[in-house]
Amino acid sequence: MKIQVVENVLSANEQIALENRRLFDEKGVFVLNFMAAPGAGKTSLIERTIEALRHRLRISVIDGDVASTIDADRIARLGIPAVQINTGGACHLDANMVRSALSKVSLDETDLLFVENVGNLICPTGFALGEHLKVMIASTPEGDDKPYKYPGMFSVVDVLALNKVDLLPLLEFRMDYFRRGVEALNPDVAFFPLSCKTGKGVDEWVEWLVAARSKLG
Amino acid sequence: MKIQVVENVLSANEQIALENRRLFDEKGVFVLNFMAAPGAGKTSLIERTIEALRHRLRISVIDGDVASTIDADRIARLGIPAVQINTGGACHLDANMVRSALSKVSLDETDLLFVENVGNLICPTGFALGEHLKVMIASTPEGDDKPYKYPGMFSVVDVLALNKVDLLPLLEFRMDYFRRGVEALNPDVAFFPLSCKTGKGVDEWVEWLVAARSKLG
Repeated sequence: MKIQVVENVLSANEQIALENRRLFDEKGVFVLNFMAAPGAGKTSLIERTIEALRHRLRISVIDGDVASTIDADRIARLGIPAVQINTGGACHLDANMVRSALSKVSLDETDLLFVENVGNLICPTGFALGEHLKVMIASTPEGDDKPYKYPGMFSVVDVLALNKVDLLPLLEFRMDYFRRGVEALNPDVAFFPLSCKTGKGVDEWVEWLVAARSKLG
Repeated sequence: MKIQVVENVLSANEQIALENRRLFDEKGVFVLNFMAAPGAGKTSLIERTIEALRHRLRISVIDGDVASTIDADRIARLGIPAVQINTGGACHLDANMVRSALSKVSLDETDLLFVENVGNLICPTGFALGEHLKVMIASTPEGDDKPYKYPGMFSVVDVLALNKVDLLPLLEFRMDYFRRGVEALNPDVAFFPLSCKTGKGVDEWVEWLVAARSKLG
């Protein structure tokens, strides 16, 4: 009897992520998946990026949270279309949640779509959403040992923003130790130390993002 | 045909947690499960509590992390027995991981066992370990909206420590808004604003813990 071997079967999530990605490419929408621990500053970085780019590009946002519409409300206050996904307890977004939310996003009128994942440094790592770039936000008060303790997410992201550098004078944060940990896991990551509060370093990130989008377009 | 109904079947995790708990009670070991987002200060609060109680009670620690032995090393530097569990990617501790680690803990020579969970504000909530108390550490730089966005953990814990109050002057943290969110979810929680860095508020927590242990003994 001959055994049938089926190779390269995609998981259900990977399959739907691929379909999301095809749709994004067809519509010319550049999509970012923002991931971080709770309170690192995902919404704040999205707000800052919107402020810098809203007159150059059309932006939409999908916000993922276990509960509440706090984040989507913050984005909507900027006059930017925002859709809130409440996962109802689930610890990450998946491609199908994003697909469902897309019915409420005007892709034809969007150049940049920011997807804000659930605040969690572990679980979102394994779930592609169809995004072009994975963006991680770490923050200085979380400590300099995070790359060593949570290597999974640090390994897979395209961009690492280190937020809240304005607090550095008050913290015992060894930048060298942090950078060495990141370097060992992900030498090619684009690294942006910044402060969403003071605005320091945000321009560098924004210009990099514009260039990354152009390359893909 | 009569249908057999089996009621109150415990999940595998609940069953093992119950067995852990029976063992803890038999040995007179009071067990705390420390949960928090990454970098909120779980290890720091454990260190401070050890410093305050090490001459009154015999303490052991089980540290859970996705990777590394950074936390167990910190505890061992204090001369306290520490066992590190590496979950290898898993986003929470479960009762069986703790049971396995117990083979390396001298329960007969332990009055207080601190179990430090993986840094995650969502997934550990659903997994009892056999502990007597669930302790959550929030931290001020995470923001004042966390009870609203992560209601699950805030609802089930016995103790809530709000760490890094020394940073409050630099943050836009509305204490009233935070407290109202906690109150709505968990009016009976024991609340301790404190700073592991300066030591402020740590005594109140430590004395409460000693009293809680006495009540159960």
